[in-house]
Amino acid sequence: MQVRNYGRKSMISKSQISFVKSLQQKKIRKEHGLFIVEGLKSVSEFIQSDYIVDTIFYTDNVISKLGKLSHNIKAIEISTLDLTKISALTSPQQTLALVKIPAARELTPKLLKGSFTIALDGIQDPGNLGTIIRTADWFGVALLICSENTVDAYNSKVVQATMGSLSRVHIAYTNLDKFLEDIDIPIFGAVMHGQSIYKTDFGKEGIVILGNEGNGISPEIIRRIKYPVTIPRFGKAESLNVAVSASIFCSEIRRNL
Amino acid sequence: MQVRNYGRKSMISKSQISFVKSLQQKKIRKEHGLFIVEGLKSVSEFIQSDYIVDTIFYTDNVISKLGKLSHNIKAIEISTLDLTKISALTSPQQTLALVKIPAARELTPKLLKGSFTIALDGIQDPGNLGTIIRTADWFGVALLICSENTVDAYNSKVVQATMGSLSRVHIAYTNLDKFLEDIDIPIFGAVMHGQSIYKTDFGKEGIVILGNEGNGISPEIIRRIKYPVTIPRFGKAESLNVAVSASIFCSEIRRNL
Repeated sequence: MQVRNYGRKSMISKSQISFVKSLQQKKIRKEHGLFIVEGLKSVSEFIQSDYIVDTIFYTDNVISKLGKLSHNIKAIEISTLDLTKISALTSPQQTLALVKIPAARELTPKLLKGSFTIALDGIQDPGNLGTIIRTADWFGVALLICSENTVDAYNSKVVQATMGSLSRVHIAYTNLDKFLEDIDIPIFGAVMHGQSIYKTDFGKEGIVILGNEGNGISPEIIRRIKYPVTIPRFGKAESLNVAVSASIFCSEIRRNL
Repeated sequence: MQVRNYGRKSMISKSQISFVKSLQQKKIRKEHGLFIVEGLKSVSEFIQSDYIVDTIFYTDNVISKLGKLSHNIKAIEISTLDLTKISALTSPQQTLALVKIPAARELTPKLLKGSFTIALDGIQDPGNLGTIIRTADWFGVALLICSENTVDAYNSKVVQATMGSLSRVHIAYTNLDKFLEDIDIPIFGAVMHGQSIYKTDFGKEGIVILGNEGNGISPEIIRRIKYPVTIPRFGKAESLNVAVSASIFCSEIRRNL
């Protein structure tokens, strides 16, 4: 895997195939500090970002579509059949990259000053987290803070659902309860019985907490909320999907800024 | 399957198992006029709705939790193993019902007067359609009109993602282009380059069109739009998830009503 092989298909060994597949597991991702990104568009966006791309597996000579690659990136052309073997997608998309998980930056309350941050307390569904990251990127929310029991952002399904936005939104995992203790900007929480979001003045800075799909925000985090906020219900659904709630919060914050 | 068997487990035959499983296919659903609903909460909501529940398979004596059942409903207790065989879920949830697909009501422009309706042009992802139905139910949107190439609302993944809301939101499939021709209320469309949604006055009635995940609204439908509307972008994501867009439209319409 040290040599570039432009123009001819390399063999990918059985052990390489099983290594890439093993990166579907969080434990193995942590151990090797690598995660999987699939698809030309997403891989391009990671190449252009601050992330370090380690290896690119590609088919059909698409490497030229990825632009100029740094010399540190291993680029390996493989057969479509081999791509199918390492891909987590039903329809593999010509490119699969192994990207380095960035070192955790120190998370200080100062980082949050003057902007809006989303905090997630125990989100479990990869599609939901991915959609929230994509929505945060659309609305210019640069930082997402996740409780330690939130699904791993480097899970392939999350990465896929972000549509490349993971390369631009900073994700930090932390002890949310402890972190919120020291926050000196307004703490908003999405709850069932709070003030109407349409009557809430979010001001210029703050943190918005969204909770688990089934149970909402956990009791220890609830007590950190200064401003409980509700999206009013006009019909009969019991709840909103959490990625939908997050997007309505992002929209309301931006419409008033 | 004609006799009630409260209190003892029935056998479910191989052909019954394969019949229920075959309802995962749209063609078979159409042929038999039945679709699958899973989980106690969702099944309860269909029982309480205008839908006709045909058969309920249940485990662990949970039938008592479903309230009073009409005598036309076949209720069959089966083993957990058999439920696993007929369920489409990774973790089957004690109940699986076969529910009748309602006859298509005639869709007239008059039906839309005085309220807001969402129209979907070619939505493909079941999770997206399900989330849109759930969101419509939250915001009191009673009618969802789908183009004929939109994913089937009675697909199990859609039903699951609606969290019971499918029992309350009316879904109509139609030739969207032809239907829009006769509409005399404002037609809004979610597009990339329109007026800001935050500056749009939706008024008291209208139809909001949302397009396919990859390609947006198709050219023939685009020309029917009177008011092209955009959710402004503040960051760098290329697009928003369509269920997220739909929810922001619903929220903006309601906040101003």
